[in-house]
Amino acid sequence: MERRRDDGIGLDELALAARNHGMPLEAMRADITPAGMHYLLMHYDVPFVDPSSWALSLGGFQRPMDLTLDELRARPAETAPVTLECAGNGRAMFETRPLSQPWLLEAVGTAEWTGTPLAPLLEEAGIPDDTIEIVFTGLDRGLEGGEESSYERSLPIAEALRDDVLLVYEMNGQPLLPQHGAPLRLVVPGWYGMTHVKWLGRIAPTSERFEGYQQAVAYRLRSHEDEPGRPLERMRVRSLMVPPGLPTFPERERVLSAGPTTLEGRAWSGSGAIERVQVSVDGCAAWTDAELEPSPAPYAWHRWTFDWTAPPGEHDLACRATDAAGATQPLDAEPNLGGYANNAVHRVHVTVTS
Amino acid sequence: MERRRDDGIGLDELALAARNHGMPLEAMRADITPAGMHYLLMHYDVPFVDPSSWALSLGGFQRPMDLTLDELRARPAETAPVTLECAGNGRAMFETRPLSQPWLLEAVGTAEWTGTPLAPLLEEAGIPDDTIEIVFTGLDRGLEGGEESSYERSLPIAEALRDDVLLVYEMNGQPLLPQHGAPLRLVVPGWYGMTHVKWLGRIAPTSERFEGYQQAVAYRLRSHEDEPGRPLERMRVRSLMVPPGLPTFPERERVLSAGPTTLEGRAWSGSGAIERVQVSVDGCAAWTDAELEPSPAPYAWHRWTFDWTAPPGEHDLACRATDAAGATQPLDAEPNLGGYANNAVHRVHVTVTS
Repeated sequence: MERRRDDGIGLDELALAARNHGMPLEAMRADITPAGMHYLLMHYDVPFVDPSSWALSLGGFQRPMDLTLDELRARPAETAPVTLECAGNGRAMFETRPLSQPWLLEAVGTAEWTGTPLAPLLEEAGIPDDTIEIVFTGLDRGLEGGEESSYERSLPIAEALRDDVLLVYEMNGQPLLPQHGAPLRLVVPGWYGMTHVKWLGRIAPTSERFEGYQQAVAYRLRSHEDEPGRPLERMRVRSLMVPPGLPTFPERERVLSAGPTTLEGRAWSGSGAIERVQVSVDGCAAWTDAELEPSPAPYAWHRWTFDWTAPPGEHDLACRATDAAGATQPLDAEPNLGGYANNAVHRVHVTVTS
Repeated sequence: MERRRDDGIGLDELALAARNHGMPLEAMRADITPAGMHYLLMHYDVPFVDPSSWALSLGGFQRPMDLTLDELRARPAETAPVTLECAGNGRAMFETRPLSQPWLLEAVGTAEWTGTPLAPLLEEAGIPDDTIEIVFTGLDRGLEGGEESSYERSLPIAEALRDDVLLVYEMNGQPLLPQHGAPLRLVVPGWYGMTHVKWLGRIAPTSERFEGYQQAVAYRLRSHEDEPGRPLERMRVRSLMVPPGLPTFPERERVLSAGPTTLEGRAWSGSGAIERVQVSVDGCAAWTDAELEPSPAPYAWHRWTFDWTAPPGEHDLACRATDAAGATQPLDAEPNLGGYANNAVHRVHVTVTS
């Protein structure tokens, strides 16, 4: 199933790229990504759920319960901007990749999510003493390796009890759209996108490590098929640049007039705030600090800007971020079997005309 | 620039597929396509327009005027469901194609558009006697063949004066999203998507045939570079099927349990109502009529259904539509230089398990 970059993208990969979608990078001009510009990955088909006949099942707790959408909406509500990025973002930039969604750079977005905190609900339901993880089951179904299954992921109990983990029913002040998980999805700030289970049907405690497909097989950093690998969890530090100037069509090369201009973009990390963004205008030889704005919430992206007097000619721009944990984006990311977590510096070639 | 299907999709084509997006075919379960599932093609970058400092300019008329969004909203409003399809839908299904957005099948959607009719506004502005076309200029800018230009298209005066042509500021009951043309776009029911100019800045009459890039070079049916070709106008008759059963990931093959099932999909044409949809369950050898529902508006898609008792095994399903003008979808569409208007029958392979 290995694909090489030189071989082009297969029709099977294109079929995934046609239904899933990335965020056009100019959307980073906005603090909050508009609905329909936010990235979207759907493993199976989008379920169209009738909210009037739907209920969230909390099974296996000391006091099992079913909750309707109205009951969930009647609970305390919180709203937070949260940056979500797919763990496979950058997959198609690796020299080799597996058959999967061929993301280039755009699998990210920052929406304002509204929902009710998960932890108080789990406490009310009563968490059995031997619980080590909480399992979240979506209503979306498909076949993985010949086995029919629902999309399911687990969280360690300590993560599930964080006070910023939400059961979300609104995005950007509107009812959740079908493709974003209506009527209810999970949002776990800081974690890669596969964690934020959409179309939630059931939440259950478990006393054993959850070994479902999306946890034990997919979404792990591995070099070989026969090693268990490390699970993907928090988003690696990353920055992206709004491609400056005007695009050509259909090549999407960038053309800019000479003179003063302001480069801008966003930076984020699942391991704390961004401490620094640097820009290179000479192909990653020299780096200069960009202006970094504070982020509006602990797990929402920061805006950065960089004033540049563009001289005529061909230029290779780049940006890289460093987070509070001290991690900096690499020039090239380490290859891995699943094509995950490619947070290499973002490079943008521009032609500056006099 | 010619690409062959066997050569795979280039990274340049993937970059287009990552930012533009198709409608996941299961969205055809809904009469109205939710925001964010509707197809989207952006030639250049999405402009983020501040509606408070924006006005629509009607220049070159007998009584030129500028209209704010509030002034446009104060005019008579109409709402209609309209099916929009990209003229390049199906491009990547041709054996050869040019470098452009590599659509497979999903470049379609049906939204409920709200706006004010164009014709009364043109009459108020006063159409010069020698007018033969109306030119619509978007605020999106880019380079085509080295020339910087705005996205511009014209309509013959008779089409511009149709009473169902709207200047649209709402989609599905919400303010137009940035990527769908906020604050104002054109909607010309029945025509391919390139006509519905987004981010409208200016409307002007012309006494000569408009020869802008998007009119005279792009969006024409041609066999050779040196022929002028025929302009693309109304959408060809087409039907699509919701892929039945469950998908595998990542291959997106379809697996269905044996027994009674209902196939469903949508059908539309820019040349009048759909008269007939037929389904084949044996690889296009025999065709049987599907149940066809009336369409909710003259240029919105029809829903169709087909009851099938699925026997175990491998099956090649297909659907094809016939419109009121008598046109039927072909088994294979005629190749053309731009890869346009590929309305070949939709084929879906399914594995039925006992």
